[in-house]
Amino acid sequence: MSAGASAAQARPWDGHASAGEIARALGLPIQGDASAAIHRIAGLSQAKSGQISFLSQARLAPQLDSTQASVLIVRPDQLVRAQANPAVHAVLVSPDPYLSYARLTQWWVQRHQPLREQQVAALPEASPPASCRIHPSAVVDARARLGENVTVDALAHIAAGAVVGPGARVGSHCVIEAGAVLGADSVMRPRATLARDCRTGQRALLQSGAVIGGDGFGFAPEQGRWVKIEQLGGVLLGDDVEIGANTCVDRGALDDTVIEDGVKLDNLVQIGHNVHIGAHAAMAGCVGVAGSARIGAGCTVGGAGMVLGHLELAPGVHISAASLVTKSITQPGVYTGVFPIAENAVWEKNAATLRQLSRLRDKVRKLERGGPD
Amino acid sequence: MSAGASAAQARPWDGHASAGEIARALGLPIQGDASAAIHRIAGLSQAKSGQISFLSQARLAPQLDSTQASVLIVRPDQLVRAQANPAVHAVLVSPDPYLSYARLTQWWVQRHQPLREQQVAALPEASPPASCRIHPSAVVDARARLGENVTVDALAHIAAGAVVGPGARVGSHCVIEAGAVLGADSVMRPRATLARDCRTGQRALLQSGAVIGGDGFGFAPEQGRWVKIEQLGGVLLGDDVEIGANTCVDRGALDDTVIEDGVKLDNLVQIGHNVHIGAHAAMAGCVGVAGSARIGAGCTVGGAGMVLGHLELAPGVHISAASLVTKSITQPGVYTGVFPIAENAVWEKNAATLRQLSRLRDKVRKLERGGPD
Amino acid sequence: MSAGASAAQARPWDGHASAGEIARALGLPIQGDASAAIHRIAGLSQAKSGQISFLSQARLAPQLDSTQASVLIVRPDQLVRAQANPAVHAVLVSPDPYLSYARLTQWWVQRHQPLREQQVAALPEASPPASCRIHPSAVVDARARLGENVTVDALAHIAAGAVVGPGARVGSHCVIEAGAVLGADSVMRPRATLARDCRTGQRALLQSGAVIGGDGFGFAPEQGRWVKIEQLGGVLLGDDVEIGANTCVDRGALDDTVIEDGVKLDNLVQIGHNVHIGAHAAMAGCVGVAGSARIGAGCTVGGAGMVLGHLELAPGVHISAASLVTKSITQPGVYTGVFPIAENAVWEKNAATLRQLSRLRDKVRKLERGGPD
Repeated sequence: MSAGASAAQARPWDGHASAGEIARALGLPIQGDASAAIHRIAGLSQAKSGQISFLSQARLAPQLDSTQASVLIVRPDQLVRAQANPAVHAVLVSPDPYLSYARLTQWWVQRHQPLREQQVAALPEASPPASCRIHPSAVVDARARLGENVTVDALAHIAAGAVVGPGARVGSHCVIEAGAVLGADSVMRPRATLARDCRTGQRALLQSGAVIGGDGFGFAPEQGRWVKIEQLGGVLLGDDVEIGANTCVDRGALDDTVIEDGVKLDNLVQIGHNVHIGAHAAMAGCVGVAGSARIGAGCTVGGAGMVLGHLELAPGVHISAASLVTKSITQPGVYTGVFPIAENAVWEKNAATLRQLSRLRDKVRKLERGGPD
Repeated sequence: MSAGASAAQARPWDGHASAGEIARALGLPIQGDASAAIHRIAGLSQAKSGQISFLSQARLAPQLDSTQASVLIVRPDQLVRAQANPAVHAVLVSPDPYLSYARLTQWWVQRHQPLREQQVAALPEASPPASCRIHPSAVVDARARLGENVTVDALAHIAAGAVVGPGARVGSHCVIEAGAVLGADSVMRPRATLARDCRTGQRALLQSGAVIGGDGFGFAPEQGRWVKIEQLGGVLLGDDVEIGANTCVDRGALDDTVIEDGVKLDNLVQIGHNVHIGAHAAMAGCVGVAGSARIGAGCTVGGAGMVLGHLELAPGVHISAASLVTKSITQPGVYTGVFPIAENAVWEKNAATLRQLSRLRDKVRKLERGGPD
Repeated sequence: MSAGASAAQARPWDGHASAGEIARALGLPIQGDASAAIHRIAGLSQAKSGQISFLSQARLAPQLDSTQASVLIVRPDQLVRAQANPAVHAVLVSPDPYLSYARLTQWWVQRHQPLREQQVAALPEASPPASCRIHPSAVVDARARLGENVTVDALAHIAAGAVVGPGARVGSHCVIEAGAVLGADSVMRPRATLARDCRTGQRALLQSGAVIGGDGFGFAPEQGRWVKIEQLGGVLLGDDVEIGANTCVDRGALDDTVIEDGVKLDNLVQIGHNVHIGAHAAMAGCVGVAGSARIGAGCTVGGAGMVLGHLELAPGVHISAASLVTKSITQPGVYTGVFPIAENAVWEKNAATLRQLSRLRDKVRKLERGGPD
């Protein structure tokens, strides 16, 4: 996945703002150098010079000492610690840094959206190569870039700023947005969507209704309401990835959601933002993987299996159908957690006892100590 | 949600028929005033004068005494009780009122569909405001009504009789049907669908592939077959609602499915007909809420959580991921019901014992009474 | 389902190749008559004269004696047994017949795809009947065949070689591909997809976003990678079938996926390849049925219920919501397997005991034998 490396260099939402401008936009007091230049919002541990980050959970406070971010948003009680880091040029003080981060993403998008549109509008216009077969009803913007031998079926839409690799086939009613890249020899079946800033490797196969690049599900709570965190990352698919019908792969919050080479996802699978799926993993229908989970290479998840957020599965872990993974799994093997099905009457009796299971255990303990009293 | 109040006044499928016409159409005997005028089909407890309802479950028979419906469909053994209600002008007698209700919805739709189409055809034609940006490939019917500064991307379809509020952005390949309303400053990402009679509040965000207004899943059984109950309600979304990619919100059977202000639904969520979701609730990916459930304000449901039909969750209830709610929950708090995952061999041993759990309990009881005999 | 019978006669991917050509294409040694003519790939038990099959699982070896396939792919140790069957004219020897089968499907598609395209291109062009109402923005290929009184809404695409029965209504942004048949009086709501070689009976209702004919999830493992098995079957829906919004029905691997008359599927349901669903079964939202399962007539599956692959449910089996079927069920009745939901603290205590349940049983056994020692 050579595309991955270059992605670390420049990202679609990179922009420019000073610490002072950000503080004013968010209505926050600032300590330090208000002229500090910021080009990206980043997580505390990934942030580098010229980037802004925030501390939302007290347990991550030690990262304040090591982060390379130039500007930080922290609670008042973390101000001194943040300022002690020599890499930090300015600190914005917020009673709720996570909420401030949400507002920052909104301001960032509003500020840079016009610039992005100008960049796309400034792209040179060109006709597709003569080797392409494009249905007359398809809408291929002159500022999209198509490789040789691309096929575009009826009523597909390839937007300005999209890139389609040679030999790719774009099905009827597909959408490829600005900044998206469909790799060489890839196939999009009818009604697949490759949203802005989402890229596939070579020989991707996107089944009908697949949505690559919906927004990750990110909100900051504010007085009982939800404030949207704009999702600034994209999706990066490796080579030979297959995505099933009506399956969704969300874009990352700040970085990309990554699916490595050879991964196969069945239909109606949900992949949350910033998930990382290792090479040649496979997931059956109706699986869900919540945000920021890391699935090791060669893992499999049976139908309707679920993996909670921020967990890690070691390579070679196999999750049985309908099982919920609630903690990280470090050893390869087969893992299961499903209630055995039975005739309903039998289930009801067992379930009734199960509801009192810890009491049953207590009774057995008492019996072990000398029988009932 | 001011739109909600006005919706109670007139509904898209309001029409006109006499009790006698309905009786003839359904092939049912009628007692009482065959000229009684009907303009709507309604549930027994919601029905008002000028409306027709039915009694399908004997346990609801006491509602026959208090319903305000002008015409009822009941079993022969309920005829006398139905006639005793002075609000009831006519009674249709059916061996299977639920099946008759299904057939009534079909007849009602066939009768009034041409009228609805005439109403739409009679709408005045107008050009969108000059401030709108409409891609030349988009299909915007001249009898659709667009506010100022609406953006419509390539190949989107806004049908006659649809309304799009000012500042809204309609993505590529979106569909907005007759009678649908997209609120001001709302955004539909590519390939979202807002079906007939479905309305959003302001600043709605519909991700790609979202379907607002699929039919609710309603059928009456008849000799081992399923007879479709036409779904006459719509969907009503409040302000600031976000609907995830490929998520489905079904239209109501007779009334609307309602999602209040600030609710956030992740991807691949299923909301059944006539569900009511209170303000600022949030549901993670792959959640399902079955028909007529009521979810309180501020509730959350973890990924793949499921709520059965007709249940009620009090405000502030939090359902853990993959947990199935099988009864109403009246107290706020966190609720969980998942089989703990384990290495498959360990699971198999525990599951085998679980299948005999009620016997294990019996053994412990016997031991408590004096040990094994 | 009369269409089913004729489907057994000729299939879309029927073609022509000799055993020798196949052996060369797969790089496999061949024993026997290299000129043996092959027109179809088939499963071992279904294969007939003129067809090629393979043995991937040793436990199925007895089928080598009875298969009617003309050509087989087997492991070296099965060569003699395969040759002993007089119906078998040639045997290809492979160290991994399942992988060879995967490669064969790929080669078969590449070989015959141009022929299929030529067949479609050679279809006569014709205008739709004057009774049809076709929106000017719809794309209806002149080599599609439409019955009387068909309605096609804006931006729908009906491809060359598609057939639409009389009275059918094709919604906005629907796609009907080559070789697909939409039955008379059927309705496709906006953005439904009927992919190549998929057929519905009369009065089908496909809700928005439904995908009929995504690829089945079939791959052969090869050194830690997945090799795609091209899915050569289609989907066959009976009369009066309703498919919910964003529901997926996968095409079969070699034969068709079959859904019989009157079946109703709710939203976001996943039906794997080669599933067979008996007449008038019904499945609620978020259900999953894995590949090759057979669901009996009149079965019901509650929301998010799951049926594993290759299982069989007898007619009249009812699976409760969120229950996982892990073995075939031969007796009608209600079956359940869900962990009862509880306040999280209660659940945690019960779940902790559950993790040790088999030990608890051992303790009780010990107590029964004479109390703790």
